[in-house]
Amino acid sequence: MGFPYQSKGMLSQYRYRLGVLSTDPPLGQTGGRGASAPRGMVRFHGWLPCKFAQPNLPATMPFTTPFADRLNNVETSAIRELFKLLGKPGIISFAGGFPDSALFDVEGIREAANAALSNEPGAALQYGATEGYQPLREQIAAFLAAKGTSDVAPDQLIVTTGSQQALDLLGKTLISPGDKVIVEGPTFLATIQCFRLYGAELISAPIDGEGVQTDALEQLIAEHKPKFVYLIPTFGNPSGAMLSEERRRRVLEMAVKHNTLIVEDDPYGDLYFGAPPPPSLLALSAEVPGSRDLLVYCGSLSKVLSPGLRVGWMVGPTELLAKATMCKQFSDAHTSTFAQATAAHYLKAGRMPATLAKVRAVYAERATCMGNALRRELGDAIAFVQPQGGLFVWARLTGAGGKVADGAELARRAIENNVAFVPGAPFYAAHPDHATLRLSFATVGVEKIEEGVARLGAAL
Amino acid sequence: MGFPYQSKGMLSQYRYRLGVLSTDPPLGQTGGRGASAPRGMVRFHGWLPCKFAQPNLPATMPFTTPFADRLNNVETSAIRELFKLLGKPGIISFAGGFPDSALFDVEGIREAANAALSNEPGAALQYGATEGYQPLREQIAAFLAAKGTSDVAPDQLIVTTGSQQALDLLGKTLISPGDKVIVEGPTFLATIQCFRLYGAELISAPIDGEGVQTDALEQLIAEHKPKFVYLIPTFGNPSGAMLSEERRRRVLEMAVKHNTLIVEDDPYGDLYFGAPPPPSLLALSAEVPGSRDLLVYCGSLSKVLSPGLRVGWMVGPTELLAKATMCKQFSDAHTSTFAQATAAHYLKAGRMPATLAKVRAVYAERATCMGNALRRELGDAIAFVQPQGGLFVWARLTGAGGKVADGAELARRAIENNVAFVPGAPFYAAHPDHATLRLSFATVGVEKIEEGVARLGAAL
Repeated sequence: MGFPYQSKGMLSQYRYRLGVLSTDPPLGQTGGRGASAPRGMVRFHGWLPCKFAQPNLPATMPFTTPFADRLNNVETSAIRELFKLLGKPGIISFAGGFPDSALFDVEGIREAANAALSNEPGAALQYGATEGYQPLREQIAAFLAAKGTSDVAPDQLIVTTGSQQALDLLGKTLISPGDKVIVEGPTFLATIQCFRLYGAELISAPIDGEGVQTDALEQLIAEHKPKFVYLIPTFGNPSGAMLSEERRRRVLEMAVKHNTLIVEDDPYGDLYFGAPPPPSLLALSAEVPGSRDLLVYCGSLSKVLSPGLRVGWMVGPTELLAKATMCKQFSDAHTSTFAQATAAHYLKAGRMPATLAKVRAVYAERATCMGNALRRELGDAIAFVQPQGGLFVWARLTGAGGKVADGAELARRAIENNVAFVPGAPFYAAHPDHATLRLSFATVGVEKIEEGVARLGAAL
Repeated sequence: MGFPYQSKGMLSQYRYRLGVLSTDPPLGQTGGRGASAPRGMVRFHGWLPCKFAQPNLPATMPFTTPFADRLNNVETSAIRELFKLLGKPGIISFAGGFPDSALFDVEGIREAANAALSNEPGAALQYGATEGYQPLREQIAAFLAAKGTSDVAPDQLIVTTGSQQALDLLGKTLISPGDKVIVEGPTFLATIQCFRLYGAELISAPIDGEGVQTDALEQLIAEHKPKFVYLIPTFGNPSGAMLSEERRRRVLEMAVKHNTLIVEDDPYGDLYFGAPPPPSLLALSAEVPGSRDLLVYCGSLSKVLSPGLRVGWMVGPTELLAKATMCKQFSDAHTSTFAQATAAHYLKAGRMPATLAKVRAVYAERATCMGNALRRELGDAIAFVQPQGGLFVWARLTGAGGKVADGAELARRAIENNVAFVPGAPFYAAHPDHATLRLSFATVGVEKIEEGVARLGAAL
């Protein structure tokens, strides 16, 4: 195979890491001193430095302690072979799933961090409450209020180490092995793997251009009686779809009707390009009696301010938050108080509206550019809904004109043409649509987008 | 009961939080804007603000979604009733389990954070590799080398969100429900609860003044064939004991003999007061063939620099680290890169030796003061080994002279005398010794220690 690792262990890691499609955050490294991947380079977790192959390391015995059974629930992916072909220089990458670091408000974050260390060094550096740093909880409540949810008190949310931890805590708190959870097909890959580690059986609900199909969803709820339903209603990863307001109301109504918990993951809702999206399920729940008690809302600063802070939050029923907080105590004690205090000062300083305006404008331009280029270069061989926010174009190959209709096959050809994206099939917990693909426009400038899509067209 | 919460959910939380003896990190809050607990005050997680009792919050429905079965494994504690009596002003507290925030090198951390934002803002604020920020892994490897373990390469450790997360990842990666894990009796409370959440059956190995009794440990290993053995060999919480070098070698030898994984948790090893402790198991494993392949080492900056950064690390066999990294990807994606880059710059700046010298000196003075005061005020009614490092005096009531011999009973009387400590029984996974108590000298100045111990003597 010519595989560059000697260690059986690392080979195993390689398989696993690729298995979860690590083009999304967190970024892999190539072994340089932690440098960010150069713009345009595709980085995967599996592409670790070859230090483990250094001849001067002592020979190690095979690790014979059996791993926990739950690890058997995480599958490796068929697309890993594809990723072995990646990594060559000069590639334009639409494969990432992260914001553009050039847009980070470094100065604002620096001021916030310094304010935290000046004003409350003890609190910013000491252990903190598991449920979160109270001033940050207050700022997050205010942030939610500014977005239309004014009835969430600071104590009705807990701070999590990124919204990924909110998902983990939901799994830990709610999922017993064999429990069913309904997710969108497609949905966020790390959600699939996260819930499967806790033994969940995932049921996939179909989506269309307006998000999850509520008739089908209600049927699945009635049939499977899931522990909960996980949705990314607004500009989701990977679909980029925006659930219509009508469907949002239906989701909340069916939650009450079927007494089913709904988890709304909303990392992208602030990244709209034109008119704001419909209210979040959280905001709308104020209008649907009983629905708030059956709703968990996960938010994050990762896509709008900085992923590196690892500051997310979870709003939910009091008893659930209490249990999640107990679980969090044994997961990481609490989220970094230094990061929390920094985030609190940042929000308090009032810089977020300008930051949001800036990132919205940049991503909107790139999304428009990519949509136009795709229509121009790929014509009727590709179908997609022009995203109204978020980081992604989710598309489907039509096969028109005898062109390639398989996402993985196009991905292979694209790499040969020095452009990369992620095929869509792995984003499905079940019944993958092999014609789909995900293209991120977030970290690529418009000229590179034009060039990359042209290469994609040539690969078709 | 006069209990100040209306919400059934919060009452439940209160029980749970007290159930895990939340005198240890993370600190609770009293609802002031996240202020640290005033020196001398006892704070518990359960003592949340009464905002949930505000009359203007909407009435909520009871939460009827069943929680995961694993939550049944976390027991509430019998001592929670005791803690309801705490919280009155003027108490001198030896109950905490955290470093003194007055000793934090705020200026050094500020410089490090600013250097991170100036030198590599993208890396410090963007998503990062799950296994850790490479410059920090290199600095941690250098830190370990300076302490006598020079053969751990940066790629042979992963960064964790505090060493609490290392414990969580070990549980997630290794423990299937019903698996046995041997811990010291007594051991760190959050370890007990963390492993139990993954379904572990904990076996308690006896300790004495020199740490875990190796003959008994070997017998337990042979009998129970545990998934792994968890030890805090150096100045452990709560025992403060220092495992002798001879016993350390025996532990490593029995690991090899029985092919049993050993987890060394070492957050306190740098906090020695006189001569340095024996080498860590990690360092010694270089001299015991085969033992390195059966050893996991967990370290942390929490007790020596700042808990709020939430920077810990785990050294271990390659295959185990690979699986733990995969699990971490779904736990929190990665540890805050902002905190990691800050820690990396702090270590690189070379300030750690001076910081360690400072905290060692302060804690040494307080430990000496407490030991002398205990001998003077409680005489032969108390027995303990004078700690040679760490944050704790672990003591046993002898009942001499007809004095109180029950730790919980003394704790009740002590609170009436305005001094607090933690009874020792809850630190046992099994077979508690009810005569034991844990006293922390870390956050109390010497005058208050004298006064507090005098109150304790009067309560006896």
